[in-house]
Formats: sequence, C-alpha cells, structure tokens
Amino acid sequence: MTTRLAPPVFGEPYLLTPGPLTTSRQTKEAMLRDWGSWDDDFKAVTAEVRRKLLAMAGITDDSYLCVPMQGSGSFAVEAALSTAIPKDGKALILMNGAYGKRAAQMVDYLGRAHIDLDKGDYLPPQPDEVDKLLSDNPGITTVFLVHCETSSGILNPLKAIAEVVKRHNKIFLVDSMSAFGALPITAEDIGFDLLVSSANKCVEGIPGFGFVIVRKDLLQASKGRAHSLALDLYEQWVYMEKTGQWRFTPPTHAVVAFREALKQHEAEGGVDGRLKRYSDNRDRLVAGMRKMGFKTLLDEQWLSPIITTFFSPAHKNFEFGRFYNELKQRQFIIYPGKLTLAESFRVGCIGQIDVPVIDELLAAIAETLDVMGVDDCTPAPL
Amino acid sequence: MTTRLAPPVFGEPYLLTPGPLTTSRQTKEAMLRDWGSWDDDFKAVTAEVRRKLLAMAGITDDSYLCVPMQGSGSFAVEAALSTAIPKDGKALILMNGAYGKRAAQMVDYLGRAHIDLDKGDYLPPQPDEVDKLLSDNPGITTVFLVHCETSSGILNPLKAIAEVVKRHNKIFLVDSMSAFGALPITAEDIGFDLLVSSANKCVEGIPGFGFVIVRKDLLQASKGRAHSLALDLYEQWVYMEKTGQWRFTPPTHAVVAFREALKQHEAEGGVDGRLKRYSDNRDRLVAGMRKMGFKTLLDEQWLSPIITTFFSPAHKNFEFGRFYNELKQRQFIIYPGKLTLAESFRVGCIGQIDVPVIDELLAAIAETLDVMGVDDCTPAPL
Repeated sequence: MTTRLAPPVFGEPYLLTPGPLTTSRQTKEAMLRDWGSWDDDFKAVTAEVRRKLLAMAGITDDSYLCVPMQGSGSFAVEAALSTAIPKDGKALILMNGAYGKRAAQMVDYLGRAHIDLDKGDYLPPQPDEVDKLLSDNPGITTVFLVHCETSSGILNPLKAIAEVVKRHNKIFLVDSMSAFGALPITAEDIGFDLLVSSANKCVEGIPGFGFVIVRKDLLQASKGRAHSLALDLYEQWVYMEKTGQWRFTPPTHAVVAFREALKQHEAEGGVDGRLKRYSDNRDRLVAGMRKMGFKTLLDEQWLSPIITTFFSPAHKNFEFGRFYNELKQRQFIIYPGKLTLAESFRVGCIGQIDVPVIDELLAAIAETLDVMGVDDCTPAPL
Repeated sequence: MTTRLAPPVFGEPYLLTPGPLTTSRQTKEAMLRDWGSWDDDFKAVTAEVRRKLLAMAGITDDSYLCVPMQGSGSFAVEAALSTAIPKDGKALILMNGAYGKRAAQMVDYLGRAHIDLDKGDYLPPQPDEVDKLLSDNPGITTVFLVHCETSSGILNPLKAIAEVVKRHNKIFLVDSMSAFGALPITAEDIGFDLLVSSANKCVEGIPGFGFVIVRKDLLQASKGRAHSLALDLYEQWVYMEKTGQWRFTPPTHAVVAFREALKQHEAEGGVDGRLKRYSDNRDRLVAGMRKMGFKTLLDEQWLSPIITTFFSPAHKNFEFGRFYNELKQRQFIIYPGKLTLAESFRVGCIGQIDVPVIDELLAAIAETLDVMGVDDCTPAPL
C-alpha cells in the first residue's frame, strides 16, 4: 500500500509533531510568488480565508467574526485572552498541560485576576469541578479551556464543560489550536465566545499567523481592553473592516499558502474527511506501537487523533536522543515528551500523513529498536 | 539593457513598495520544504541567521545579541520599546511620520511616560532640538528614532542625533526597519543600544518575523519589564540561549527563506553592494520622473535609497486609483502617499529591482500618463 499523498522532497523527513507539520507540495508552491499586502488581490485572499474559517466553525450569519493575528498561535491566544477578560474581570484557567499553564502566565502579564484548576500532567478537568468553582466564585467572568492539550495528547471534555460554562453565563474561550479543522467544533454545538487556532495545525498551512473566531458583540465591547498595540484584536478588526488590509504587514506567503491548504481541506471532505484520515493514522499508530509493546499514557477514550504520548521503554539500551536520531535518519521526526511523571515521547498524526506513512514509521521504529538492542518496550512502573 | 535579476513569474507584478517586496526565486524556493522547529537542523538555521545579522551591524564580540521575534516588524518594535524603557522610565519619541507616531502609541499601551518631538509629515528632527529636550528633561531614559521614515521616504540624520543621545548617556533605540541591510549602521559608528528591523526589507526576505539587535547588558537588565508574554524579548532570548529554539512556533519557512536571502546579500557585496544597487535605482527613478515633470517631496540630501515620495500631478485627469491600476496592469505595484499636506504617491527602490526594471517602470508611467491624458505633471501649489 503506497501513500496517497505527495511525499516530501529533497529527502526531508516527515514531521510527526503537533506543528509545524508536513504540508502538501501544492500548499508550499503557493509561496512561489510575492504579493503586495496593500493590493486588492491580497485583500481578496484575506477575505476568502476569513470567510472559510467562519464556515468551518459552522457560522452562517454575522454574529461572529474571524480576526487573524500575525505571529505564532500563542500570539493569537494572548490577543484573545486580553479581549475575553475585562480589565476588572477574572478568568478561570482550566489546565492539564503546558498550554493551560501558558494561558495563566499570559493573564499574569495582562495584570488580570485568575483562578486556576490545575489537573497536572494529563488528567481532564471535570465538568462538576468547573461547576463548583463557578458557583463558589461569582466574580469569574471568563473560562479558558484547551480543546486538545498536545503536551499529553488528551482530548478534553469540551462539550460537557461548555454546557456548564454557558449555564453560568460566562465568557467561554476555547484554545482549539491543535484541533480546529479536524475535530468538529461549531458555535452552535459548543456555544464558545472565542475560539483560537493557527495556520500550521489541522488546516495544514505553514506557520506565520493565528486567528480568533469571536462573537461580534463581545469584540465590539472590548475596545481599549488590549495591553499591546500589536496584539490588539479589536483594532486589528476595525482596521481590517475599514480597509480590507491587515493593520501591520501580514505574513503574505503564509496567508496565500493557507488559502491553498483550505482548498485541499475542502477537497478532502472538510472537517469530517480530515478527522477520518487523522483517526485512521492514530488507530494504526496505536495498534502498531502496542503490538511492539509500547504503552500509551492515556486510555482509549482520551486519545486524540492529533498526537499520542507513549511511555519510553525502561530497557537499559533505550535513550531518547538516539531513538530520535535513528528515526530521523529514516525520514521521521517525532516529538519529545512533556510529562513530569515519566519518560515519554509523542508522535503526531496530523499533516500530510496517511496510513501507509504510519506503516513506514512503524517499520522504522521496529528497525530502530533492533539497532539499539531494545527487545522489551515495557515502561518503568509509575 | 536587460535586468540582471530573475523576473517575477506567473505575470506577477514588481512590488515597488517598502515591503513586502519582490524577492528572488531562490529565496522563495527555500520554502519548498517543511522544517521541524524543534530539530537540530532548524536550530542551526536560526543560529546562522542570528550570527549574520550581528555581523551586518559590525558586531564582532558578545557585547550585543540578536533576538528574532515572530510577527511583523511592528511586533519587534513593540518588544524593543518594552525592553528599552524601564517601567519608571521616560521615552523621547522623535517623530516625522507614521512610524514615529506608532512608537508613541505603543508606549501609551505600555503605560510608560513619553515626550514627543513631532516634526509633522517629513521634516527631520534636528540634533540641537534633541539636545535641548534632553537637557530640559533629565528624566528621559530612552530616545527612539526612525532611521528611514518610509511615510515620506526621508533619511533622518541618524549619526548627528546619535552623538547627542550618547553625550547625554541615554538608551538609544533605532528603528532601522526599512534601512538595515542597505544603509550602513554599525554599533561602533552609531552606538545604538537597540536596533530593530525585519525579514522583508533590505535583506529581501519574506515577511513573518522581525529582529532586535540589543546590547547584552541592557537585555539582561530588562527581565520582568515586558508587558506581554509573546513579546517578551528577554524571555525569548533566555529560551533561545538555553535550547537553540524559538520560544513559540517560529515562521519556519520565512526563517529558511531569510537564510537564503542573507547568502544573496553577501554575494552582492553586503551592505555596500545593496546600497549601490538601491541608490542606482533611486537616481534613475528620480531623474526619469523629474524629466516627466514630477516633483519629489524632499530635497536631494534627504532622499533615501529606500522609497521616494512624489507629488501627484494637479492635472484634472490625474486620479491615483486609476494611475495605480494602469501601472498594475503593466506589472508594477506602487504605493499610495501618506502626507497630510498634499496628494502624493510613493515608489520603492528596494527588493529584486535594478535599473533596467526602473527603466521599464518609467516607460510604463509615461504610457499611463498618455492613456490618462495627463500632459502636465506639475503638482498643486502647497
């Protein structure tokens, strides 16, 4: 079985990471020309991208807006937080990994109040815990949740938490960075007030900007709330509405590549099509790894189709640095773990990767274990 | 005479703007692969880029550092301002156009004190004015100057102002966004404390990040000064030193394209070679436009080799929108003016443009004037 996808060229490795990821040749080739950021042709690209992202979130009226933001996804998260938390407001930050922690740090920079529900390395925040915190702390204005926390690969219980947050009538900010485009999340189903993602995740663009899908009335009410000129989401929107341009120089090539990536996303069947491919990747990956004796951090129900954490084998010959380099020589780049409780590594399922590529990866892992002399993949006991 | 440079493909226009600009095919082709931002290969690219930028500023020891920052150039300016102005400090913002004004706005967002010397649309700040302001306001800690203010195209008197600032022993922050790489500016000559520029200007990269060249002891002293997590230059540096990686996802393709652009910059003879080509472009442009009857805003001594402002003809048939579109059809994108005092437009001399391209542009302008029925290019009296 051979891959349906264009393989990387120049002997470059597949990126089995949470992004930047392996993108299609077509997406990259869109960057082979230069665009005047002030020109109508580029304005049309920006408008098309914004429109399609709204549609991806199931938005069919003008109650929500899409505002792109230059920089990495974290830049967009910070811009969204400063929009979503009034100056005298208070945030509830639900955290179970690096991205929840980072949001809390951002709120510290903003000088705004926050309460954290920290579940450690990977346990999911529970709806009843959120319910109790919101009941006990009526001053909370805004709840922040990471949809898929890539530090562990967990898919958080978004819908159940959304119901609690909306029942309490709080502003709900979802960091769907690594999930949007592959996991269904619509304004109708989830009732989010703000959703953040970026170009180089499940839409399979190249890195350079993020975007916020935000309720129009909330954005309108946020004038003067930003702590930063560059990250002022309200002003970015006002300028874009008025002129069709980005307020400051956009990453033109990344934007045009993203438009190409959106076309391919549609051609693959949109969110459903992408979810199917990524889920197939994960299923094949997890099954193949378990067959070799690897253990996943998470139980079945929490495994996302984005990235999976595996415990490192306790075998004396296993050393992550060598494992990584042997796999890289075999054209696969994997990702280090981020757990405090145990040695681990992560393998992404997103980007231009399909089951035949996963099969090649599994063969490369088997070969690497053989070369390293690791004949038992059992992890150390926790 | 034909151009030495690879012409744009796909019938795309030349970008005669202050950036994003026309880049070489080689620079764009570097984006035809994907890079793992965590991988050693990409770390090596980042290290190479940082090292070469320091060398471009004439820095041969470790007294200065280069810290890149995701986003447009303005993101790097804002990060630099928050580094350069202590929380209880005060900035003197020298302004004669949009970029000086924007810096003052940024300092307002930072909540720090500033005094502005506003010279209006295009007049240069004078060293003796700066001297007097610094003498009268001993609380000023930091002086901000735009090297080449592209709103008018003026080349500000950097060296003379630098001497005043250093005599008063103030922190000197130079926004050399549109000039660095083509106009000589070294730490030794100018004694700047911070210099900001971005990828898509005179080094001829694609947009996606900026960078700050900063005195090491000043950066070290700036811990805790930033107003934003994403724009925290100190933390970006600390993380980069420790890991070789960018703190948050870098615009990988823009960084790799920039490395290619730096190689071409060297091959052209570095700053001197680039200055010569851009100066030749400007000289041919200004001479040709004057021959048609156009007037430049600025006198000879203030004309930068970056971008030139021309007054719009007062002729009843001249209308900028049509002028722009006719030129675009002829494969040239020019830039609107930004003056409050008169109708104007701007033409850039930077990017992959040489004298034969300028000659083609001049022919296209002559043809456009003919098509529009403009037979007199005299501007309206001021």
